Amino acid sequence: MYFNFACSYTYKFIMGLLAIAATSNFHVTLASPYYGAKGTKFGGVPMNLGGLKSKKLSSGYMQVKIKAQQAPSKINGTIVTTSIREDLVSRQNFSIKSYEIDADRKISIQALMNYFQETVIHHYKANRFHCDDFGSTPEMLKQNLICVTIRMKVVIYQYPTWGDDVQVETWISASGKIGLRMNWHLVDCKTGEILVRASSVCVMMNKLTRRVSKIPDEVRRELEPQFLSPLNLDDRKDLPRLHHNAADYISNSFSPRWSDLDVNQHVNNVKYIEWILESVPLSIMESHELSSMTLEYKRECGKKNKLQSLIAISSADEDGCNLGHNNGHLIECNHLLQLEDGVEIMRGKTEWRPKLVHNFDIMNLVM
Amino acid sequence: MYFNFACSYTYKFIMGLLAIAATSNFHVTLASPYYGAKGTKFGGVPMNLGGLKSKKLSSGYMQVKIKAQQAPSKINGTIVTTSIREDLVSRQNFSIKSYEIDADRKISIQALMNYFQETVIHHYKANRFHCDDFGSTPEMLKQNLICVTIRMKVVIYQYPTWGDDVQVETWISASGKIGLRMNWHLVDCKTGEILVRASSVCVMMNKLTRRVSKIPDEVRRELEPQFLSPLNLDDRKDLPRLHHNAADYISNSFSPRWSDLDVNQHVNNVKYIEWILESVPLSIMESHELSSMTLEYKRECGKKNKLQSLIAISSADEDGCNLGHNNGHLIECNHLLQLEDGVEIMRGKTEWRPKLVHNFDIMNLVM
Repeated sequence: MYFNFACSYTYKFIMGLLAIAATSNFHVTLASPYYGAKGTKFGGVPMNLGGLKSKKLSSGYMQVKIKAQQAPSKINGTIVTTSIREDLVSRQNFSIKSYEIDADRKISIQALMNYFQETVIHHYKANRFHCDDFGSTPEMLKQNLICVTIRMKVVIYQYPTWGDDVQVETWISASGKIGLRMNWHLVDCKTGEILVRASSVCVMMNKLTRRVSKIPDEVRRELEPQFLSPLNLDDRKDLPRLHHNAADYISNSFSPRWSDLDVNQHVNNVKYIEWILESVPLSIMESHELSSMTLEYKRECGKKNKLQSLIAISSADEDGCNLGHNNGHLIECNHLLQLEDGVEIMRGKTEWRPKLVHNFDIMNLVM
Repeated sequence: MYFNFACSYTYKFIMGLLAIAATSNFHVTLASPYYGAKGTKFGGVPMNLGGLKSKKLSSGYMQVKIKAQQAPSKINGTIVTTSIREDLVSRQNFSIKSYEIDADRKISIQALMNYFQETVIHHYKANRFHCDDFGSTPEMLKQNLICVTIRMKVVIYQYPTWGDDVQVETWISASGKIGLRMNWHLVDCKTGEILVRASSVCVMMNKLTRRVSKIPDEVRRELEPQFLSPLNLDDRKDLPRLHHNAADYISNSFSPRWSDLDVNQHVNNVKYIEWILESVPLSIMESHELSSMTLEYKRECGKKNKLQSLIAISSADEDGCNLGHNNGHLIECNHLLQLEDGVEIMRGKTEWRPKLVHNFDIMNLVM
C-alpha cells in the first residue's frame, strides 16, 4: 500500500469530499438498484453463486455464465440481493490451504486480505482497463499516478476452514467524485452463503511527489464503464485518534523486516493489519474471534521507519453497554500504528465476538 | 513442527543411528537405481515433467499419465535423472500469487516452504496410507505417534517469480532403519527445469510423552510400499553449535505471536525459518539471494517461550576462501535459535550468492 500525505491540508480536503460523497446517490444500500456514474439505471440482477454455471480454467480463474433464474445469496441464512451487472464482477476461486489457517483451523486474516488483493489485481487485468501488472491504467501511467487505499472495512460473518472452497467476488464503484471503491464478497462455494464482505476506498497519488489527488477526468473515463453499486458497510465515519494516555498497551518500537516489504520496498498494507492484531492480548485471541475491522491508512511506511502499536480495549454487551474487558462479551479495540515521533501510520477499530468452540486439541502435523 | 527432546540421550542415540544410516545403501545418489527397503530393485524410470500428460482436477491436484518416452529434467541446463516409480510421486500445481513474492518479485522462502508442507500432506492423504488430515497412519494413531522433522536441506538453483506456474513433486524414502525422508522437487511447468530441491528427515514422537523413537515395525510396514530412492543433498553432517561469543548479531528476546501458532498451539517450523532469516542484515538481503539452507530442529517451541536469534556471518570466494563479509562474493551464515536460558531450538546454516539484478524500481500496487 503506497500512501503518503505530504500535505495534511490535501488530506482534510480529500476526506471532506469523501464525507460529502457519503450522502450522494453513489452510496446506496446493498439491496438498492444500481445507478451508474452518469445516472444510468441498470436492471437488478441478483449476484450470487447458486445460479451460476462456472468452468474452471487452467489459471484457476472462473468463467461465469448466468442462468435466467438465480438462487439468492445469504448472510447467516438471510437472503440478500445486490443489483449489479454480472459481467462486471470478477471471481476467483481459492481452496484454503494448510498454511492459510490459524490456530483454530480457520482462515487467517492475512490469507483473507491476500485473497482480496489477488482478486483486485486480477479484476484490473481482466476487465478491459488495459492495466499493467499492478493495476495502473494507461492514463494513470501517463500521469504517474498510482491508486492508494485510504480506508477499508471488513465484516466477517463466518470463518471458512482448512480445505473449504471459497470464491471471492470483486467489483469497483465510484466513491463520490474523487475516489474509487473496491468491493468484495467471500462466498462459500458449497452453500453460496456470503461469509465475508469488505470494501475499501482508494484515491490517486502521484508516485513522484507522493501527493494525493482526486481521480482526473481522463482516468475516470477509463474506469467509469466498470462502475457498479457499492457495498454499504457503514464505514464512512472517521475513527477517533487513540491517544497515548488512553492506550492499554503500547508495543516496543519495531522496524519492518525484509519479508514485510513489497516490490516498492514499502510495507504492504496487509502487514499493517498483522501489526495491529499482534497488539491484541493472547487471552482475547484465545476466547474471541474478529468480527469486523475498520482501517484508516494515513501514511506509507518504509524499511527504515521505527513503529509503535497502541491499543485500547473495551467490552460491551449486546446493547453496546461498556462492561470492561470480559471474556463472555463483545470486545471492541481501538488501534493506532504510529512512528516513534508520533506521526500516524494507521488508525484501526476491531470488534470481537466470543468463539463458539475452543479448538485446542492436540493435532498431528508432518512438518 | 512438533518436536521435543525430553531426553538428550535419546537424541544422541537417534542421531547416531541416522549417521550410520548415511553410509547404508538407502542413501543413493540422484542418478542411482532405486533399492527398496528390502533391497527390491525397480527399473529406472526418469522423473520429469516434460514427458507427462497431466489433467487438472477441480481440486487443483494433477492426475499424471506416464508416456513411454520422457524428456529428462534439467538443473541449470544439465540433464538429471532420478530412478523412481512415477505412481508413488505426488504432484501439486501452484500459480505464484502476488502475496507470495518478496521485494524482488521472486517467490518468498515462506511460500516455498508452505508449498512443500501442503504437498506432503496431500501425499500422505492420497497414497493409500489411510492417513488422517495431518498425515498420521492408523498404526501411528493407535500408538499415539506423530512424525516430526529433525533435519532439512533446501537448495535453490533459480527462483520462480510472480505468475509463474510451478509443480511440486514429493515422495518418501527410508532414512536408515529409524527415520523417514521426505523429498521435493519444485519444477518450472513451462520448461520442466528443476528450480529447487529439498529433503527432510523425520522420526516418530509419542505425542503424550514427547519422546522420540525409531519407526515401529508396524508403522514401517504401512509406509514401506511407498518408499522410493531419496535425494542426496549432502545434508548428513551435523551443524556445529553457534556459541554466544562467536555471534555477529544477537536479536532481542521475542515471543511467538498468535499468527505464528498452528492448530497445536505450537510454532510451525516455517516460522523458525522466518526468524533466522530476519537476523540476516538488510544489506545482505538487498545484495544477495539465498542459495541453500540446512536446518536442524532440536526442540518444539510453545507460545510462552522467549527466544533469541544468533547469527555469525562469513564470506568466501568460489574456492571457499574466507573473505570476511563482502558484497561481491558468496556469503555463509551460521544460525542459532535458542530460548533465553540457552536451550537450543534450531541450528541453521544458510548460503547466499550475489543477486544478478537489483529490482528496486518503483512499482504500482492497488492495495
